[in-house]
Amino acid sequence: MTDRSAPDRLLSVLAAFDHAHPALTLTDISRRAGLTLTTAHRLVTALTGWGALERDASGVYHVGLRLWEIAALAPRGLALRQAALPYLEDLYEATHENVQLAVRDGSEVVYTEWLSGHSAVGVHIRVGARWPLHVTGVGLALLAHSPPDVQAAYCEAPLEACTDHTLTDPQRLRRVLAEVRRTGVAVSSRQVTDDALSVAAPVRGPDGAVVAAVSVVVPYADARVPVLVPAVRLAARGISRALGWQPG
Amino acid sequence: MTDRSAPDRLLSVLAAFDHAHPALTLTDISRRAGLTLTTAHRLVTALTGWGALERDASGVYHVGLRLWEIAALAPRGLALRQAALPYLEDLYEATHENVQLAVRDGSEVVYTEWLSGHSAVGVHIRVGARWPLHVTGVGLALLAHSPPDVQAAYCEAPLEACTDHTLTDPQRLRRVLAEVRRTGVAVSSRQVTDDALSVAAPVRGPDGAVVAAVSVVVPYADARVPVLVPAVRLAARGISRALGWQPG
Repeated sequence: MTDRSAPDRLLSVLAAFDHAHPALTLTDISRRAGLTLTTAHRLVTALTGWGALERDASGVYHVGLRLWEIAALAPRGLALRQAALPYLEDLYEATHENVQLAVRDGSEVVYTEWLSGHSAVGVHIRVGARWPLHVTGVGLALLAHSPPDVQAAYCEAPLEACTDHTLTDPQRLRRVLAEVRRTGVAVSSRQVTDDALSVAAPVRGPDGAVVAAVSVVVPYADARVPVLVPAVRLAARGISRALGWQPG
Repeated sequence: MTDRSAPDRLLSVLAAFDHAHPALTLTDISRRAGLTLTTAHRLVTALTGWGALERDASGVYHVGLRLWEIAALAPRGLALRQAALPYLEDLYEATHENVQLAVRDGSEVVYTEWLSGHSAVGVHIRVGARWPLHVTGVGLALLAHSPPDVQAAYCEAPLEACTDHTLTDPQRLRRVLAEVRRTGVAVSSRQVTDDALSVAAPVRGPDGAVVAAVSVVVPYADARVPVLVPAVRLAARGISRALGWQPG
């Protein structure tokens, strides 16, 4: 372990926490980070003192409020979300369905916002969840507007199937992406689960580049796509305008 | 600088980012973190490689998506927020006013959620904003339910005034806190700004301890407190139940 740098060791302590492991003992951390107990203890103590971790009454560690405060400054995290939230709320009030905001990270889509009231049904998507780009509506919207080399590489790699309806044929995926660019909207029908459909539209930044995508997910059985499309497009344009984009 | 530990130096790079400084050059980071350019460069490179920071096309650094994803696991940040969000949305739909969720950090209140639609007016509170406990509704609700020694120490320290209406008399503050405990609701009237009023209620965890507070902020001039109180209390109880609290 002597070849690991000090930053690498400290960051491995933070990386020990994930959605399946949001609460860890010192032993868990040491094991998951590949550190000796002594090193893990020293680093956890530093992180706890600073507020990046918090120790509860039972001695279990959680991610701390101070790390959350700094992370809230991430332009693609809470900062984007704050510009988007009023429009996401409007979309939620108009549809009363699950509403999502997502960004692209390499070949994956990361959900950075998710609104769901008591009345919303269907797929439950977690903030921070990741999916391959080709399976979800937001992923298709983001992939369709990513640089040509990113699209080409994505279509050449194997396309994972989540259901029998997932787009796994590269030719068909290329046609769908062209259609997304033409219509300004992406529909993913039963590609993630057999009973859900999502409608997504791209969000643009000040320079017109696509920086995020917004979507609603509804049960496939009674999805009224023609009704959802204008609502989702309107929300996406509203967020784009809030970010400084001007149509033209 | 040789007496600073490796974790301290790395964390000082993260701490260089705040609401007034969400985007920094390498020189900014080195200056704000008190590090040499060489050390700052080494640490920033490690943090960027890991995804804790992101470098944009102009060479400016921002907080990265990966840090945001890990911070989303903070029980008092996004995890609390996800349990609370449906109830905050209901409160927003019922009132169409600014809705907040906040937690106590020492002698300050930290806003961890803030919903505001187009129609909401009044004070604009930022996620991650901090205020002294005695000036805001959520702060009073949290202080009233904090351990007796915390309350005693708080009331003995100087009480900062934001407006002529801010509670600065410790005797009066103690009476207000007793009233908050008796009624289950805290009202802060023109304490932060001369034109705003907030109504807040405490949120309880599974063991009955107060873990957060929820509020609405409205313009003072047409605040209908008797109408807001039941809505805010209902939202707070709904979130408490979602967290596992049972009245009894």
